[in-house]
Amino acid sequence: MTNATVLDQLYQTIAARKGADPSQSYTAKLFAKGRNKIAQKVGEEGVECVIAALSEGNDKLVSESADLFYHLLVLWAETGVKPEEIWAELAKREGISGLDEKAARTET
Amino acid sequence: MTNATVLDQLYQTIAARKGADPSQSYTAKLFAKGRNKIAQKVGEEGVECVIAALSEGNDKLVSESADLFYHLLVLWAETGVKPEEIWAELAKREGISGLDEKAARTET
Amino acid sequence: MTNATVLDQLYQTIAARKGADPSQSYTAKLFAKGRNKIAQKVGEEGVECVIAALSEGNDKLVSESADLFYHLLVLWAETGVKPEEIWAELAKREGISGLDEKAARTET
Amino acid sequence: MTNATVLDQLYQTIAARKGADPSQSYTAKLFAKGRNKIAQKVGEEGVECVIAALSEGNDKLVSESADLFYHLLVLWAETGVKPEEIWAELAKREGISGLDEKAARTET
Repeated sequence: MTNATVLDQLYQTIAARKGADPSQSYTAKLFAKGRNKIAQKVGEEGVECVIAALSEGNDKLVSESADLFYHLLVLWAETGVKPEEIWAELAKREGISGLDEKAARTET
Repeated sequence: MTNATVLDQLYQTIAARKGADPSQSYTAKLFAKGRNKIAQKVGEEGVECVIAALSEGNDKLVSESADLFYHLLVLWAETGVKPEEIWAELAKREGISGLDEKAARTET
Repeated sequence: MTNATVLDQLYQTIAARKGADPSQSYTAKLFAKGRNKIAQKVGEEGVECVIAALSEGNDKLVSESADLFYHLLVLWAETGVKPEEIWAELAKREGISGLDEKAARTET
Repeated sequence: MTNATVLDQLYQTIAARKGADPSQSYTAKLFAKGRNKIAQKVGEEGVECVIAALSEGNDKLVSESADLFYHLLVLWAETGVKPEEIWAELAKREGISGLDEKAARTET
């Protein structure tokens, strides 16, 4: 699998771990820790992507980006967000204006 | 486009804006600001995903996740990372052990 | 004022702005935006300190550290945390073991 | 010690650990890990303050704020920034305009 659909596949795997035995899987353990801890990991991996991009090189950025995606997918599964909702949101922005829709917003 | 391949499409659009006129596009403007600013946006959007998940609800999490993905793709284009590298990294982890490869790592 | 007591002074000034006219002061405006936005600024300024330390030099780190402290003080005033509580916590850690109390904790 | 000067004291303790045996102290171990890791902790503790303020209550915010200050002081010692520089910066902003100097800036 060498395109982004690995994310859809990964989401299915992750979602199936909700409620599984925490001793059997990192993902199940993360769900057991609860939403605060999952969200914390997303924030931390964002910081690690920053550091990788500024000081550690592309191999580290690949690895940290993968970590960030993984934890974000866990957060979606935890909150009940579906990947399709994000893809639709991105397609909408892309479709309307080639990303420049964002230019109209105040930058936050 | 309703699967994750929107990310591959979006990456192409973003990469094509490198060196474009900053006055014409938010993306080109972001590239012009440089790597520190792009990385900063990734870190900030990570924080906004945290807040959305804890206090603002799923619609906001969808929107902030889309923002995070967009800015991460810009950071990849800026540093020369290809989306395929992240998909391969995720597929490798998934393939070997259904995510539980991570369980063997010390959690950082 | 050239020691850390500027923080105690600053906290008093900040706390006095709670409920003030948002059009008259950045601080009052921030309180009016609410806790999510104040917390977001703390997270963002943390990211900016990271970037300053790695890529922008000491003058920027001084400026971003000041921004981080300021927004953290606003967050304390918003939540009702008193500066004395943090000073006591730091003094306790320092007193017991010269910071090494932390060594006993699992690093998170 | 119940005012903010605990920070000045703490900085002295921290700075004295630079180059000390990493096996003897959490602080010395952190210096040994290098600037990227120290900066990462600052970013992560910022995220933890966000979560504490939104979902975990004031006791946790006190504890996480103390963690954030501690790691920021380590980052200052690592980069050669002196606490006095931050106090002077905050006093300058306070003195000129009671924090409202910031109102003139574009919010970033």
